[in-house]
Amino acid sequence: MVKIAVDMMGGDEAPDIVIEAVKNAVNDFPDLEILLFGDEKKYNFEHERITFTHTDEKITMDDEPVRAIKRKKNSSMVLMAQAVKEGKAEGCVSAGNTGALMSSGLFIVGRIKGIERPALVATFPTVTGKGFVFLDIGANSDAKPEHLVQYAKMGEIYAKQVRSIDNPSLALLNIGTEESKGNQQTKKTYQLLKQESFDNFIGNVESKSLLLDACDVVVADGYSGNMVLKTIEGTASAIFKMMKEAMFSSTKNKLAALTLKKDINKIRDKMDYAEYGGSVLLGLNGVVVKAHGSSNERAFYNAIRQAKLAADTKIVDKMRKAVGDVIE
Amino acid sequence: MVKIAVDMMGGDEAPDIVIEAVKNAVNDFPDLEILLFGDEKKYNFEHERITFTHTDEKITMDDEPVRAIKRKKNSSMVLMAQAVKEGKAEGCVSAGNTGALMSSGLFIVGRIKGIERPALVATFPTVTGKGFVFLDIGANSDAKPEHLVQYAKMGEIYAKQVRSIDNPSLALLNIGTEESKGNQQTKKTYQLLKQESFDNFIGNVESKSLLLDACDVVVADGYSGNMVLKTIEGTASAIFKMMKEAMFSSTKNKLAALTLKKDINKIRDKMDYAEYGGSVLLGLNGVVVKAHGSSNERAFYNAIRQAKLAADTKIVDKMRKAVGDVIE
Repeated sequence: MVKIAVDMMGGDEAPDIVIEAVKNAVNDFPDLEILLFGDEKKYNFEHERITFTHTDEKITMDDEPVRAIKRKKNSSMVLMAQAVKEGKAEGCVSAGNTGALMSSGLFIVGRIKGIERPALVATFPTVTGKGFVFLDIGANSDAKPEHLVQYAKMGEIYAKQVRSIDNPSLALLNIGTEESKGNQQTKKTYQLLKQESFDNFIGNVESKSLLLDACDVVVADGYSGNMVLKTIEGTASAIFKMMKEAMFSSTKNKLAALTLKKDINKIRDKMDYAEYGGSVLLGLNGVVVKAHGSSNERAFYNAIRQAKLAADTKIVDKMRKAVGDVIE
Repeated sequence: MVKIAVDMMGGDEAPDIVIEAVKNAVNDFPDLEILLFGDEKKYNFEHERITFTHTDEKITMDDEPVRAIKRKKNSSMVLMAQAVKEGKAEGCVSAGNTGALMSSGLFIVGRIKGIERPALVATFPTVTGKGFVFLDIGANSDAKPEHLVQYAKMGEIYAKQVRSIDNPSLALLNIGTEESKGNQQTKKTYQLLKQESFDNFIGNVESKSLLLDACDVVVADGYSGNMVLKTIEGTASAIFKMMKEAMFSSTKNKLAALTLKKDINKIRDKMDYAEYGGSVLLGLNGVVVKAHGSSNERAFYNAIRQAKLAADTKIVDKMRKAVGDVIE
């Protein structure tokens, strides 16, 4: 049995989509137990594998992260993180305030000994559907080269354990493929990565090759990673917007579009990283999954599934062994 | 009459596409004179407004930039830059080695007094077709906040003069819109930009909004700018690749695709920034335009057109007045 704590009150569409996602998840996974934290007035469902805890305190999107988790001790997010801290759950999921969730991870769940900075990791779509593991996509905006080496180690383990990839190829996000390319940070990081013993470090990768299955794990500082994530998102959305306009521009086009609709939607779904679950905050003493703030039921369900998979594969223990011990 | 120097030997498809582009440009613009530098064995065309200078020395893509321009004194690129330095041409265009062209700009054409670092600027496509001015897209990977303020000044002037935009809205590329978002560099740059008197500084812009006509001028350090440029390029190319596969996946789809082909190609062309000309290296004592290495005839033609426009609008004089003087 895997126990996952869930924040019912976080995200734009909470609590409705959270409740739906939780219902579907317990139905689909007979070995999943959910600890749900939220307002009882919004919740009227019972299931033998859902333990409900009432609270009407809530962290909002406008709350200042660190202050929020210190003052709102009874908020659904803090209670959820405490369940992980106290060992009542192996992982947790929230679509709420990203900064507050990261602070909950850092200050309540706690870091693995030896990890200086946790990193946000997500699996990103590629043309073939294989995907790649991408970190840090936004936990730390001012990372040092040494932090990126820790991310690389965590990313490699994540690809092996959670995504079952043997000898995952690992690359450093950069603006050129040659060793000498980039800014001071990527140049120094490259040299540090070369000295470590990764399964398959293949050097630099350019952002234009990411979606073309260039490699299995991509390491970046949180600023660049988040920038690339938002650029992919924005470019895809702009193209599909123009495509939609073109398809409605004439009766002839509308008919043709009807034939292609299913296949084009498939491509759009492939580009939609909500399909791949949330982002996992790696480097903590428990699984902490951030679902997108605008998650729908499907995205939140995938985030729960991802938390379960990370717990099933004992990712935290493996990180602790492989990264924590080496660095200490 | 506007005189533009052209490097006939730079780029993947040189000299053929360069010659074609030059022919079309002199035919289309009766007030354009071209100074062409290249191998006479490859050139057999005469025009009263083309002055040809023979050289068989060439800077290749593998040449180390600074060494190349110091040693290959008779290369087509160096001769082209010298024509600008000596006042024989007001601007120049090359599709050759980017680093070498930037070094030619810095060390041969020379910087405007007061500009510490030149910046590469390009006009980028947006959904409405309006576009935005984006700099620095790769001249300096390790820029300081003070450099970004200079870029902002140059970008504003460029938008006004070359793109004829009144009161251009100006934004700082960042991973969030709030003032407090970003890394140390963007936070400090934000504060510096606030203190200057721009026509319309609107704060931060996220990369996901760029193609949705968020603003007229976007300022970034060269590392982030180049990263975003390559991410847009890569995402668009991945989506069109999947789209093409879907359209050839069945006879039914092929027929429907035939109807939509023209409109989809239009979108693809809109996303192709080659259509918008090359990148201009701003902050120099002359117009230096970098055409994409894989330019076709159309892209190179647009790069020449852009150099002519920059020369026509006296952009260098205006930069010198507005930026050089203020900073000195």
